[in-house]
Amino acid sequence: MRRWVYFLEDNLEVKDKEELKAIMGGKGAGLYLMAKMGLPVPPFFIISTRACLYFLKEGIYPDGLEEEVREGIEYLEERTKKTFGESENPLLLSVRSGSKFSMPGMMDTILNLGLNDRIVSVLSQKTGEDFAYGLYQRFIEIFARVVFGIKIEGLTWDKEGSSKEAALKYKEIIQEKLGREFPQDVFSLLFLAITAVFNSWNNPRAKEYRRIYQIPDDLGTAVNIQAMVFGNRDEKSGTGVLFTRDPATGEKGIYGDFLLKAQGEDLVAGIRNPEPITAIKKYIPEVYPELEKWARILEEELGDMQDVEFTIESSTLYFLQTRSAKRSPQAKLKVLMDKNKLGRRTKEEVIMEMTPEDLSVILNPVFDPNFKYETVGRGVPASPGCATGELCLSSEEALIRTKRGKKVILVREFTSADDIAGMEKAEGFLTTTGGKTSHAAVVARGMGKPCIVGASEIKIQETRKIVNIGGCVLKEGDFISINGSTGEIVAGKVPLVEPKVTPELKEFLNFCSSYRRMGVRANADKPKEALWARELGAEGIGLARTEHMFFHPERIKYFQMMILADSPEERRRYLAELLPFQKEDFKGLFKAMAGLPVTIRTLDPPLHEFLPTSSEEIEKLADNIGVAPETIAKRVRELKEQNPMMGLRGCRLGIMYPEITEMQVRAIFLATSELKKEGVEVFPEIMIPLTVTKEEIKNQRLLIDRVASEIFAASGIKVDYLVGTMIEVPRACLTASSLVPYTDFFSFGTNDLTQFVFGFSRDDYTRFIPTYLAKGILREDPFASLDIEGIGRLIEMAVREAREIKKDFKIGICGQHGGDPRSIEFCRKVGFDYVSCDASLVPIAILAAAQAEIKLSGEIKTTDLTR
Amino acid sequence: MRRWVYFLEDNLEVKDKEELKAIMGGKGAGLYLMAKMGLPVPPFFIISTRACLYFLKEGIYPDGLEEEVREGIEYLEERTKKTFGESENPLLLSVRSGSKFSMPGMMDTILNLGLNDRIVSVLSQKTGEDFAYGLYQRFIEIFARVVFGIKIEGLTWDKEGSSKEAALKYKEIIQEKLGREFPQDVFSLLFLAITAVFNSWNNPRAKEYRRIYQIPDDLGTAVNIQAMVFGNRDEKSGTGVLFTRDPATGEKGIYGDFLLKAQGEDLVAGIRNPEPITAIKKYIPEVYPELEKWARILEEELGDMQDVEFTIESSTLYFLQTRSAKRSPQAKLKVLMDKNKLGRRTKEEVIMEMTPEDLSVILNPVFDPNFKYETVGRGVPASPGCATGELCLSSEEALIRTKRGKKVILVREFTSADDIAGMEKAEGFLTTTGGKTSHAAVVARGMGKPCIVGASEIKIQETRKIVNIGGCVLKEGDFISINGSTGEIVAGKVPLVEPKVTPELKEFLNFCSSYRRMGVRANADKPKEALWARELGAEGIGLARTEHMFFHPERIKYFQMMILADSPEERRRYLAELLPFQKEDFKGLFKAMAGLPVTIRTLDPPLHEFLPTSSEEIEKLADNIGVAPETIAKRVRELKEQNPMMGLRGCRLGIMYPEITEMQVRAIFLATSELKKEGVEVFPEIMIPLTVTKEEIKNQRLLIDRVASEIFAASGIKVDYLVGTMIEVPRACLTASSLVPYTDFFSFGTNDLTQFVFGFSRDDYTRFIPTYLAKGILREDPFASLDIEGIGRLIEMAVREAREIKKDFKIGICGQHGGDPRSIEFCRKVGFDYVSCDASLVPIAILAAAQAEIKLSGEIKTTDLTR
Repeated sequence: MRRWVYFLEDNLEVKDKEELKAIMGGKGAGLYLMAKMGLPVPPFFIISTRACLYFLKEGIYPDGLEEEVREGIEYLEERTKKTFGESENPLLLSVRSGSKFSMPGMMDTILNLGLNDRIVSVLSQKTGEDFAYGLYQRFIEIFARVVFGIKIEGLTWDKEGSSKEAALKYKEIIQEKLGREFPQDVFSLLFLAITAVFNSWNNPRAKEYRRIYQIPDDLGTAVNIQAMVFGNRDEKSGTGVLFTRDPATGEKGIYGDFLLKAQGEDLVAGIRNPEPITAIKKYIPEVYPELEKWARILEEELGDMQDVEFTIESSTLYFLQTRSAKRSPQAKLKVLMDKNKLGRRTKEEVIMEMTPEDLSVILNPVFDPNFKYETVGRGVPASPGCATGELCLSSEEALIRTKRGKKVILVREFTSADDIAGMEKAEGFLTTTGGKTSHAAVVARGMGKPCIVGASEIKIQETRKIVNIGGCVLKEGDFISINGSTGEIVAGKVPLVEPKVTPELKEFLNFCSSYRRMGVRANADKPKEALWARELGAEGIGLARTEHMFFHPERIKYFQMMILADSPEERRRYLAELLPFQKEDFKGLFKAMAGLPVTIRTLDPPLHEFLPTSSEEIEKLADNIGVAPETIAKRVRELKEQNPMMGLRGCRLGIMYPEITEMQVRAIFLATSELKKEGVEVFPEIMIPLTVTKEEIKNQRLLIDRVASEIFAASGIKVDYLVGTMIEVPRACLTASSLVPYTDFFSFGTNDLTQFVFGFSRDDYTRFIPTYLAKGILREDPFASLDIEGIGRLIEMAVREAREIKKDFKIGICGQHGGDPRSIEFCRKVGFDYVSCDASLVPIAILAAAQAEIKLSGEIKTTDLTR
Repeated sequence: MRRWVYFLEDNLEVKDKEELKAIMGGKGAGLYLMAKMGLPVPPFFIISTRACLYFLKEGIYPDGLEEEVREGIEYLEERTKKTFGESENPLLLSVRSGSKFSMPGMMDTILNLGLNDRIVSVLSQKTGEDFAYGLYQRFIEIFARVVFGIKIEGLTWDKEGSSKEAALKYKEIIQEKLGREFPQDVFSLLFLAITAVFNSWNNPRAKEYRRIYQIPDDLGTAVNIQAMVFGNRDEKSGTGVLFTRDPATGEKGIYGDFLLKAQGEDLVAGIRNPEPITAIKKYIPEVYPELEKWARILEEELGDMQDVEFTIESSTLYFLQTRSAKRSPQAKLKVLMDKNKLGRRTKEEVIMEMTPEDLSVILNPVFDPNFKYETVGRGVPASPGCATGELCLSSEEALIRTKRGKKVILVREFTSADDIAGMEKAEGFLTTTGGKTSHAAVVARGMGKPCIVGASEIKIQETRKIVNIGGCVLKEGDFISINGSTGEIVAGKVPLVEPKVTPELKEFLNFCSSYRRMGVRANADKPKEALWARELGAEGIGLARTEHMFFHPERIKYFQMMILADSPEERRRYLAELLPFQKEDFKGLFKAMAGLPVTIRTLDPPLHEFLPTSSEEIEKLADNIGVAPETIAKRVRELKEQNPMMGLRGCRLGIMYPEITEMQVRAIFLATSELKKEGVEVFPEIMIPLTVTKEEIKNQRLLIDRVASEIFAASGIKVDYLVGTMIEVPRACLTASSLVPYTDFFSFGTNDLTQFVFGFSRDDYTRFIPTYLAKGILREDPFASLDIEGIGRLIEMAVREAREIKKDFKIGICGQHGGDPRSIEFCRKVGFDYVSCDASLVPIAILAAAQAEIKLSGEIKTTDLTR
């Protein structure tokens, strides 16, 4: 009984592919499965990961390994009719690492093992000197590097002359360096190689890779020992990599690269530019149909799109590796939907396999997958999507360049309110500090622009107007590209592919919606946004922020004059000027969402946000509205707050200045009346922000109901409407049951709730959150994913107690967490009726809601339990 | 059977004194009780309040009232041997109002009723013209005003000539005004007087008084009809008011004022300056012992210190009125303690009768009760105690005058952080706007200075440097006095009496402590404060704020340099400079509290609070510490936060800059080691502020334990210590049970908790809280008294869940609510181990804790159930 080595004929008892991979590594498992399926695979045997772990622990081979390896060699000799160490018909081997999880390029591989001075000289007589000594030189080079740690790049020698001269010269140099003869015994070479592969599990690169990708350290690597085939043998030979579908779109058919008369390593190293795979039709047409056939079978049998390595030796096709293809989420979606049609994936499986991150990438521009680029650095992916443009180091520079019609990426240490103008013009932002909720990140997500933050390896030299990204120096105006979904930073221009709602995506979202029970709405305050959200599947607006509407240049003046006014009467005068605008705003929103509910929040932010702060701005405003600058400056000072987040805002404004609420409510009902007359179905829901006590709701509701009935009476048109409240202050949660009788719905504002429950100001916590995450004080940023332990508990309590008062009381969420899958799952668990999120996140919320439903329902129906 | 009128001999069945007062008014009840006790009281009968109510409702006397009054007159005639309306020996009457609650001066009283032209002329022959016509003139004057509404002040006549001439001339003028003859029938006069007294219940003054003092409108007034005695009869006659104790101190013995040869009205009107009561010894020595005897009996029998009116007519003493004395809380305490000694009050009764407001007055300087002053205006009492000083309208002026050694009161529309320097120097503050939690109020309470806010009747004229207080104009520099316990504003200087811990207070607090189970500690960070707190009964320090210690001029520089430092090493260098100071601080505190626990909170406020903000200050600091002003300005900008209350503060500082915590902990344990060596008992409790997660506690605790063991090892001296955390962020409450395993105690910081649970910034909510209170959105300011509905719930949950983990887990409170009686009661109910409050509030907390215990235990033991 062999214990450490597996042959193809061994009938391994494993429960699934994962266990197979754990034992023989991903590469080994792929070989094993391909061979079992009947694909032409060069003979091989596999040393299990257990052997590696034993060796790494004990420092010696386990008992029996050496014997079993020798047995394996005999097995290969039998199948290849070649002999290992014999010069007549020598068996050459590839010795490859391979662990459960792909760690591309991290561990070692040795090719062409089985040559020595004697064998190569005999071989060269048969195959020609170039071929034979070419192999030998390559072997020596790799072996020296992997086994002896001697790198060719560190050495110099005369590279002129024949392959033979070169190979021997090189060997000589290695021997000199090594101080002894290069090993000539093939078994010695083999065992040295196996040991080296074992050890490569623990090389620093591999360790770092595992740390980053959170791969456990105790898996070990298998060693795949396989008979060599030679893509570089003749003009009917070559090597290639194929995908069983277009990795960008998921379209079926083989895609990939091919190199005529080359070994696989040449392809990886990128020394020669490969041709598209269709080139095989030209050079070796006889194998192309075979390639297509096996590719189709592979994908069907393995249940997923594959990424396959193959070699053609003198018109004979060999498969050397297969693995699930790394492909674009678009492709993944297409593959899954196709599988579903073929009955190879249930709807549930499709829903559960697509990740929210996949959708996020699908819904944002991406780098053209057919374009080759090199990543020069990384940061924290903070707002998804890709962007490319000229590097700008200041908002001013961004404005100058965009005025000239250029596209720009704003690169800064951090951004602040002062950068907004430039941010609005830029394609995306890259900051060297900050986390996912830094100013740049929040603004980016708000604007729907890609953003990378915390890219600490970037050094900005303001004075010289250059940035150094991990050694790559770019100056202002150079092209730079960023992928906000992955955090990748690319020097240069990368072409982008814009997102679209494909039929697959539509169908997929229908799948999801057929499972989910929780509604999905969008946070939107512009008709265009609302329409896009609707296109993406939104079933209404869960949060329309009315304040954004006042910033329009023709309106802000009246709003500012309103703030500067001394009396309710004067305020009313300016509010009257704003009423027609606001009415049109609401009409647009209601129209875009005709037939669906639209939740409008009354004014929320502190008034000072609408006033200028610098003395120049104040003077400009003073000029503009004909008020003394001192008056404005005084009012600005008066309105200044120590902690505006906890100051005069939310419904506190509507209570202090009822005339503001009144104008907004009037605009809402004038809009609904006019639209109803036009036959548009409207479902207004008015939402009171920042409620702390039921008296606040009573106060504002009284006003709302009065204005509504006045307008209904005047217009003769009545519309049904709801009045609800945001639950965003801890006290509102703690006293939820007392609020229910005065309100028609709750919408949890978890952004503010997180601020208050943690005592974390979103504007300021970036100062300590990186340390908190690094030290493990917090496991997650509570603004990114809802804190279920603390805030979740408060929400659960509020929901339970509210529903004790009114059984079917309507409850939703409209904070940023409404677009976070984990938070959405929580919302479903506690019984929310809907989540509302940014338009671009609507599909993600739909997916997350469906996934939550499936998880809650228990088992997932699968087509194939062994998969 | 009489139904409307009561005689002394009627054996009224009433359950207590309150019912007696309801029927016959306070004055009537007093007469009734005095007469029953055997005091010499001129004969009287009383028309009940029911008769008044009937009259006010129906507009006519009830059936039988007239007859019963006539019966009453006969009753008086019998007892005085005088006849009403007879000129020979005429019965003269006083006709007085008197309702259940004292409404001094609000309703009407008519004296000397029973005179007419005929009777006075006969009387004058017997008693002399001056006496008889003096009475008549006085009668006409009062009667004309009360019954006819004709005021003497509005009239002018020749006041020369004899009493007789004056009286007759005056009568003539009244008749002219009236258009008919002045009534001459004594019964007509009597019934007119009774009707006028009834009606006076509803005069505007009385109504306003009842509105202010929340006295119901449906009580009505009784009418006391009593035979007149004449303090103005001869040289052995007089009138006076006495207290059965010193109203300021409660010392036993009669105190009061006396006017020889005068009627009571002369005393009240203040026409002549009265002499001290001891003057009687000189003028009419024979009655003085009697006066003392009856005073003693009165207090004993009525169970409370009395305020008594008496008249001496030709060496015969008569008592005319008695009531519970309005006295200082000091006196109230003394009275209660004396009563307790006499067995007339149980300990429980004493504890329940003293109010926290009483103690608050006792513990603050008060106006000298022997000094007569006039209140010119009122505001909202916001910080207790009295102060007197020169009026200053700006912080700058306050600084200038205090530099010259003057004491000042800062009077402003409102105060802000800019006024702090002046506020520190001022004796007290008076603002025209704001509520109990305005900046001025909060700062005042923090500094322990008297403060009145919201005195809206005051008009400040900045330009003219004057203030107008209800018509009284003061200019800057004039003396003004304020009573922050009552809201009284006095023009001019009022001498103050400083508080002291009297034996009665000590004993009273011992009473309380024998009942209470909850501990009381003080918030203190200076040895002097700690000693004062201990003197007042504090059982330890519940909160020592370490940050205050850094503001000392020789230290702030190092602290600022620490903040400006670039690296932990540099920070450590400056912290090392601070270590000896901080160690001495702690030694002082530990020594002051030797044998008692001292809870030291690690650094809490945001660092920018320690840096200057104005460019002048920055330049000064730059000069001082030798750093470029730009560097400081940059750091100040960097540290600036949008919402500092929710920013980098609390233990977040200690986690970001462990070297700060380390220095503080080192200082604590160096202090304890040195003190223990000296034989001082120390019980350090280190408290981590602003905890949000258990990881924060673990992080800081690890550091604390490490430093402690290092110092114990080095010094060879080990001390027991606790490490606890403040619970002041909602999340800490919500996850309390997870924090317990890592901490030894919780101290609820309800100031911050209120901020976060309400989303109210203490610095900013003054902008809307007045409106919120006025509109009834909130019934109480949640910073003044704990919000039991919302925050209380959260606290209760945290306490319950913490104790489920550790049964006897130690829990306290150190927010401002720790000194608020209602909040203290709540703390007891949910099972807190202690409350901690400002030193000056310690006795109040002791009282409130005892009261809470007594309330919780159910019935209060009383000495006399009929009282």
